[in-house]
Amino acid sequence: MIVVLTGGTGGAKFVEGLRQVVSAHDLTFVVNTGDDLEWWGLYVSPDLDSITYAMAGLLSKERGWGVKGDTFFCLQAMGELAEPIWFNVGDRDLAVHLLRSKYLAQGKTLTEATTAICNKLAVQARILPMSNSRVETRVDTPVGDLSFQEYFVQRWYQDPVKSVRFTGATDAEPAPGVVDSIMSASAVILAPSNPATSIGPILAVADIREALRQTPATVAAISPIVNDAAVSGPAAALMAAQGLPVSIAGVVKAYEDFLDILIADVRDLEAANKLDRPGLRVHCANTIMRTADDKAKLARTVLALLSAENARAADPS
Amino acid sequence: MIVVLTGGTGGAKFVEGLRQVVSAHDLTFVVNTGDDLEWWGLYVSPDLDSITYAMAGLLSKERGWGVKGDTFFCLQAMGELAEPIWFNVGDRDLAVHLLRSKYLAQGKTLTEATTAICNKLAVQARILPMSNSRVETRVDTPVGDLSFQEYFVQRWYQDPVKSVRFTGATDAEPAPGVVDSIMSASAVILAPSNPATSIGPILAVADIREALRQTPATVAAISPIVNDAAVSGPAAALMAAQGLPVSIAGVVKAYEDFLDILIADVRDLEAANKLDRPGLRVHCANTIMRTADDKAKLARTVLALLSAENARAADPS
Repeated sequence: MIVVLTGGTGGAKFVEGLRQVVSAHDLTFVVNTGDDLEWWGLYVSPDLDSITYAMAGLLSKERGWGVKGDTFFCLQAMGELAEPIWFNVGDRDLAVHLLRSKYLAQGKTLTEATTAICNKLAVQARILPMSNSRVETRVDTPVGDLSFQEYFVQRWYQDPVKSVRFTGATDAEPAPGVVDSIMSASAVILAPSNPATSIGPILAVADIREALRQTPATVAAISPIVNDAAVSGPAAALMAAQGLPVSIAGVVKAYEDFLDILIADVRDLEAANKLDRPGLRVHCANTIMRTADDKAKLARTVLALLSAENARAADPS
Repeated sequence: MIVVLTGGTGGAKFVEGLRQVVSAHDLTFVVNTGDDLEWWGLYVSPDLDSITYAMAGLLSKERGWGVKGDTFFCLQAMGELAEPIWFNVGDRDLAVHLLRSKYLAQGKTLTEATTAICNKLAVQARILPMSNSRVETRVDTPVGDLSFQEYFVQRWYQDPVKSVRFTGATDAEPAPGVVDSIMSASAVILAPSNPATSIGPILAVADIREALRQTPATVAAISPIVNDAAVSGPAAALMAAQGLPVSIAGVVKAYEDFLDILIADVRDLEAANKLDRPGLRVHCANTIMRTADDKAKLARTVLALLSAENARAADPS
């Protein structure tokens, strides 16, 4: 079983690649819930949705989030009712939010609600929220303490970031299955997600980070930073606010206590050669995923590296 | 102030007529909530919605319920998630259900939620739910005890009706403003709604029925029964189950303790002449509302009768 830690649009793209080259039965996803929000009275979990839609073949490739071909008539009506509409919810997407909210109101955990939704969409991979308790990514800026979606979507990540914190993380337990799956994995992959706010909240749950340190499986990460800048989104500012260099060195630092393999972009070959981390293997590949084929190729490359690593570990001669 | 008791599609049509001929500021609606249901985890109040949409100019004329020009993409997605979709909710309609549910979850009463939605839609009439406590119309049939929507929408009102009851009615208080508005009205109109399950639940709240008995205002009802059959829907079977004749005599019997004027259809002239109810004035008019003009004409006729009645009362010489 391959375990993938993921969040954000970069993570979802990589999952679309994995889906093309690995049987869904062999995949377990541990998904960031730090971006979750209450919206129109519903519980919305953007990263769980993206991974679920990606595995169901429903993810919009144009937008990178939400359901392909979706319409926005309810959103438009909400705007006419003078309700906030800065967070985009499509009419088909809304069905999943309604269903999840109904399950949670019935007393189901987020894990149970996610499994039920996956079953309904015939998703055969195992998709796990990182935790069933609320861990919330908060971004401190000159205009105030913002939720991640307020910072990212409502305000277009234009505010300078003073600090990032994950409220509730200290007391949060990993969701059922998360630690077990990491400990028994054949390999663990950290998707090319923002280390600060997509993977960061997952690692802020202490028992998950500890499992990554303890697992006998090889842990590989794909860098979302290329040429000292984020491939997309606000990763650079958020990493800087956490004291991380905005470079592949910063990615390595974020994961330093458990990372075995870094997959950096080919454009970072020089930086990769300069990395001085005994025991860390660094490989370069094309990490920019524009087409379905790019996504599949990157997934294949990562899997091949992990296979080679496992073979090497089995026969160290 | 004219107070209108209403529910169902007949009621909504009549309200569309009133809207054309009376200033919205002069209208107060007391609306049936016995049909309300929880749907996809949301609180849905079909009759409050219909009257609100009618007064906002948003009611679908083709369907007689919901928002004109609405789409059903969320409903379709719910169907694909194997959720029940027998109760039709449009994408724009959904916005109002989301908003009302959010208000109720915040602790607002149904009255407050309704007022807030009316304000957002610039509805200037006063729309009041009959009660802020839950009164539920239950229809006992050979297949079991059904909610009104299960009986009416899900099962196409095909089941024989053994009895109808209004659970919660005994303990229900009228919503704030209902009794005051009836007591101080210039006239009270019972819309051409089903006496059994559209007006019936309102009258089952004892203090509302008592206010209708006590009010100095003239109380007029428009018959939804023409030629011993309902103009639309299941009124006949439901009236029969309540021991009411399916005729204008049955309508009069349902309202016998407070009715001053009955507006019957012209097709019931003979039946109207046979009615033997001292003190009751019966008028015949075209009550079938096919066009906007039909609706306005009926509203004008009813208002003219009430004006004449008020003039007569003011100068009984």
